[in-house]
Amino acid sequence: MTSGPDERDFIQSIERGFAVLLAFDEERITPNLAELAAATGLSRPAVRRILLTLQRLGYVRANGSRWSLTPRVLSIGQHYSASNAMIELAHPHLLELSTKTGESASLAALDGRDAVYVARVPVRRIMSINVSIGTRIPAFASSMGRVLLAWAPDVVIEEIIAAGLPALTRHTVTDADALRGVLAQVRSDGWSIVAEELEIGLLSVSAPVRDRSGEVVAALASSTSVGRSTVEAIRSDVVPLLLDAAARISADLGHRSPARREGFH
Amino acid sequence: MTSGPDERDFIQSIERGFAVLLAFDEERITPNLAELAAATGLSRPAVRRILLTLQRLGYVRANGSRWSLTPRVLSIGQHYSASNAMIELAHPHLLELSTKTGESASLAALDGRDAVYVARVPVRRIMSINVSIGTRIPAFASSMGRVLLAWAPDVVIEEIIAAGLPALTRHTVTDADALRGVLAQVRSDGWSIVAEELEIGLLSVSAPVRDRSGEVVAALASSTSVGRSTVEAIRSDVVPLLLDAAARISADLGHRSPARREGFH
Repeated sequence: MTSGPDERDFIQSIERGFAVLLAFDEERITPNLAELAAATGLSRPAVRRILLTLQRLGYVRANGSRWSLTPRVLSIGQHYSASNAMIELAHPHLLELSTKTGESASLAALDGRDAVYVARVPVRRIMSINVSIGTRIPAFASSMGRVLLAWAPDVVIEEIIAAGLPALTRHTVTDADALRGVLAQVRSDGWSIVAEELEIGLLSVSAPVRDRSGEVVAALASSTSVGRSTVEAIRSDVVPLLLDAAARISADLGHRSPARREGFH
Repeated sequence: MTSGPDERDFIQSIERGFAVLLAFDEERITPNLAELAAATGLSRPAVRRILLTLQRLGYVRANGSRWSLTPRVLSIGQHYSASNAMIELAHPHLLELSTKTGESASLAALDGRDAVYVARVPVRRIMSINVSIGTRIPAFASSMGRVLLAWAPDVVIEEIIAAGLPALTRHTVTDADALRGVLAQVRSDGWSIVAEELEIGLLSVSAPVRDRSGEVVAALASSTSVGRSTVEAIRSDVVPLLLDAAARISADLGHRSPARREGFH
């Protein structure tokens, strides 16, 4: 962190505590001290003190020289879910959408440059899309992210463009003006279909969920793969179901949907 | 925290950072500084510095004088799920169990005195059991907790007994010897049925999930309510499905199940 006017209010130990906690991932399931020091850029004595603190708080445990996360780390996210009425309200609608489409249904919120899964109903299938709550995907190249960006302040979109639009596949929209055009189209259509821009084979469609004030607070998505569907089939078959489910979640959040009044059902 | 021999390795700022983060819950969704100070027992200036730090790290945001969690807090739990192969492996088996029983299926791990939900397949129903990943329930009075305790070291059980066994309902086993007897029975049966001890109306049955070494690493549960089923119906209809699902999760974890070899299918 660079120093700034509010530097004296920044507690570096807290930043370092999270850095060590987040260094446990798929590649480092049971890391040792040296691996955590390498991953975080902290010294071994610093990592050791942080681990002993996290151990005493119950978030990590030691097995010989190896460390692992405990299920207590789930509590932190649970407090977000419990304090977020939307997730509870949305769940039956996700289940119904998933049942009707035979595909997974997801709800995501914007966090920085990413769409973050906040609720999800998976579908049992070997090829099912392998994500869970808290997973982050780049907003600019995903249908949920584009829905969230389409109604976000311009400054958010411009920050993402300034950070660069990498080609995640050969289909990714990487041109700034093209992305602005795509987002304008999403606003006009009221939904977003993204085909193989995030990952080859992945098809996804999203629609906005609005709260009482009309603000877009989440994106609802249905995801499938190239082998099972096409963009045309999604547009004709899934979009009406998706808009209906998004309208019902929004209505549960207190939003009076114009789509409903215009007879979208 | 009281001082002790390893006190110099304990970083109080990290403890306080988590205390503030965990103070956001159902009762305090958008707390202000005074409410967070009251909830944590910290001074307002201390809470303010922690909030500014958490805000800069992206975990909380301010709306006027009110604060709320961001979806970034989900990342912390996601790292646990991603680093825990069991959760991924178990999911299709939970879905299948839920489909066969028509009831929610859950997987929990032991953390201190609680069973913590680490995976769950909910069932759409107004009366469905309203819990999500990371939710904690007292181990001594729940079927998942009793399965986890039945195969836990004695010291864990004795710590729970020493902490007290409150009557959560009028059916809760609150006597230490009675609880020890119940746990011995669970070990002998290979499953646990708990009827209305955690909450009036709630029926739950659990079986152990074992890893390659044979250690019980999780409890698999099927939960229903008094209006929909009975202990007798669970014993005859659900227990075989549950044992089968638990054996298949254990097998996926590399455990060679004696139940399978004895022809439990």
